[in-house]
Amino acid sequence: METYEICKDLAIIIIFAKFFGLIARKLKAPQVAGEIVAGLVLGPCLLNWVEATPFIQQMAEIGVVLLMFCAGLETNLKELIKTGPKALAIACAGVFVPLCGGTLLYMVFYGFSEIGTPEFFKALFMGTIMTATSVSITVESLREMGVLKGKIGTCIINAAIIDDVLGMIVLTVVVGFNDPTAKPLPVLRNTALFFVLALIVGYCAYKAFKKIDQRYPHTRRITIAGLALCLALSFIAERYFGIADITGAYVAGLILCNIHDSDYIARRLDINSYIMFGPIFFASIGLKTDIKDFSLSILWFSLAFVAVALLTKIIGCGLMAMLLGYPPKHALKIGVGMMTRGEVALIVSQKGLAVGLLSPVYFTSVILLIIVSSILTPIAMKALYSLAPDESLTKAEIAEEAKTEEQEEAAEEAQTDKEEAKAEKA
Amino acid sequence: METYEICKDLAIIIIFAKFFGLIARKLKAPQVAGEIVAGLVLGPCLLNWVEATPFIQQMAEIGVVLLMFCAGLETNLKELIKTGPKALAIACAGVFVPLCGGTLLYMVFYGFSEIGTPEFFKALFMGTIMTATSVSITVESLREMGVLKGKIGTCIINAAIIDDVLGMIVLTVVVGFNDPTAKPLPVLRNTALFFVLALIVGYCAYKAFKKIDQRYPHTRRITIAGLALCLALSFIAERYFGIADITGAYVAGLILCNIHDSDYIARRLDINSYIMFGPIFFASIGLKTDIKDFSLSILWFSLAFVAVALLTKIIGCGLMAMLLGYPPKHALKIGVGMMTRGEVALIVSQKGLAVGLLSPVYFTSVILLIIVSSILTPIAMKALYSLAPDESLTKAEIAEEAKTEEQEEAAEEAQTDKEEAKAEKA
Repeated sequence: METYEICKDLAIIIIFAKFFGLIARKLKAPQVAGEIVAGLVLGPCLLNWVEATPFIQQMAEIGVVLLMFCAGLETNLKELIKTGPKALAIACAGVFVPLCGGTLLYMVFYGFSEIGTPEFFKALFMGTIMTATSVSITVESLREMGVLKGKIGTCIINAAIIDDVLGMIVLTVVVGFNDPTAKPLPVLRNTALFFVLALIVGYCAYKAFKKIDQRYPHTRRITIAGLALCLALSFIAERYFGIADITGAYVAGLILCNIHDSDYIARRLDINSYIMFGPIFFASIGLKTDIKDFSLSILWFSLAFVAVALLTKIIGCGLMAMLLGYPPKHALKIGVGMMTRGEVALIVSQKGLAVGLLSPVYFTSVILLIIVSSILTPIAMKALYSLAPDESLTKAEIAEEAKTEEQEEAAEEAQTDKEEAKAEKA
Repeated sequence: METYEICKDLAIIIIFAKFFGLIARKLKAPQVAGEIVAGLVLGPCLLNWVEATPFIQQMAEIGVVLLMFCAGLETNLKELIKTGPKALAIACAGVFVPLCGGTLLYMVFYGFSEIGTPEFFKALFMGTIMTATSVSITVESLREMGVLKGKIGTCIINAAIIDDVLGMIVLTVVVGFNDPTAKPLPVLRNTALFFVLALIVGYCAYKAFKKIDQRYPHTRRITIAGLALCLALSFIAERYFGIADITGAYVAGLILCNIHDSDYIARRLDINSYIMFGPIFFASIGLKTDIKDFSLSILWFSLAFVAVALLTKIIGCGLMAMLLGYPPKHALKIGVGMMTRGEVALIVSQKGLAVGLLSPVYFTSVILLIIVSSILTPIAMKALYSLAPDESLTKAEIAEEAKTEEQEEAAEEAQTDKEEAKAEKA
């Protein structure tokens, strides 16, 4: 492919994503749902105008890394520590219930098998695919509604982050029985080591950034250094610890969320995100989908798979949230917020394919789950929040965060300008 | 390559580019020279930490397209029309003199040959490589000094744009004698057709954007639509008319340079550019360089090649500028500003390789030319402007445009905020 040809793909994607995003907003659905639909329309399902080339997929990867970094930067760390233990409990339930549900589903369709048999591990793997929540779409829709920083928003993100780690552990344990190279103990050790490293690096980076921040407030170099920390931690997490890169990006955001310029960095990266990387990420989910491989025989399995995957997350997380004292209306939000699946489910499936635990025909079920959950979650979250608002945020706070596109940008830059004016005087 | 591995490359590139850029600034050289050096240090010449993967090259391509689009957006169209005929004359001289110089150089080294012989076309091709100016580095250093919008800055950009088109015509004519598929007449026709199309599309797009601008001033959609127009024209120019994509991007910028929000779009894309795409583009020039292939026998040729390529541009453009009435000090700036070579010279060389007019050993000469000219031009331009400032700009105007990084950003966003405040009231 000639390098200039990427210009065509990018032009088509950003125009379609924006167009469908605006339509989605008119229909009171979140913009991200529109952007995924744009990908479906452009991809092999309908027009076949754009392919999910390696370049598009790599751009999408940067997009999701930027998204999780900004989510980390905007985290309320005090709230995280307060909700930490609760989030852990919710994440555990949100991994255990879908794991059982997926295993049972496979056995109902293809016959029960004894524990330890190869057929049993295939069933268990179906459950494993269902475990990992992909929170990025929920994050984006919560941000659009202005409730990301609220009690429930923070709880969902924290639970999803822990859930991601748990999902990876389950995967490695299940695969470990088949593949002697991946052992459960090293995985647990690596995960622990990563968080120890994150604490050490985080403390040093936090101190360093505070110093740079005092000396050169509001400069390009602080934005660039922040982005470099995010990219470096993403790479290190996945390469050396086997943890998803988006977890590394989120941790990098957490490290910097208490420095003075965290909003400043987030606003600049947000411009990068909405102009190019964001639309490409969400459209790429639609682009990767091809419904041609779909036969009637696995259609029923796929539908059941999607239903079980969504319901087990809602039931698992929702019930645990209720046990922890959340009122039912908020527990339901947490369950629905956790039901999104994304690229992690695809990565798990690819691993299953590689070790022979998953047959390629079930790949379309996973993609269907990603699409359905990606489109349903934002719509359902919007409906749930309009029925029962988050009381931890005042109406003014929500209104301040949730804006139409124009207001959002105007407010962001007005804020930026105040800071810049101060920096100039100093 | 796993998708997460790009995070490592990007983190290393942006940190090194920023670091060397800051060092360059301390040494009173432009930041871009530092960014190219960062690429040299990271690439196969020294550390070999980062490879010029297809992904990096495609990101670099978007970077140069964004750079040229912003240059177009910031063009003073009245000044362009005023300097148009002069720029055409300068471009013609800047193509003709290096073409002759390169041809003679090859003949001096490898013996004279009669017109029409295969050896003659090889010599002519050496001249062809020298023709195309790559203005992006000059644009960036002129912008850093705050003199991009001045009489001389505008003249250099316009001459380089015309020069680019002329260079492509020369290439196609020279190749045309070897390859019956590429004929000179269709090339001239295509070039003419592209500019006719650009006029028609440009007029419609200008009217459409003016309407969107009135209805939704200062919105994300206007930035995204502008970017899409830029990417689309870049693709169409190269794919259907055989004109470099950066010319298409520049034309897209020209189309939108008179709408009310042109500065607004440029500022947003500029944030995209300085955070990621800009450093990647400039570093990638250094990354693509490998000095290991270099043997002593072609070292002498390469040094002579670089000297001839630089001097013929300075002499050709400078003398023509003097003939047109520019005082010598300004004519020299125009000549030096036109001497940068870049990706177009590489594209031309690759074409020569493909049709058998260029042996691979001369590739390193071209890369050396790109590096030397990319590093020398900004330094020389800075020296020339400090000796003889551009009188078409007042000191206040230059000071307003030329800022340190922090001031630049502060001023940009202060301006943005004024607009946003107005938009909110309206």
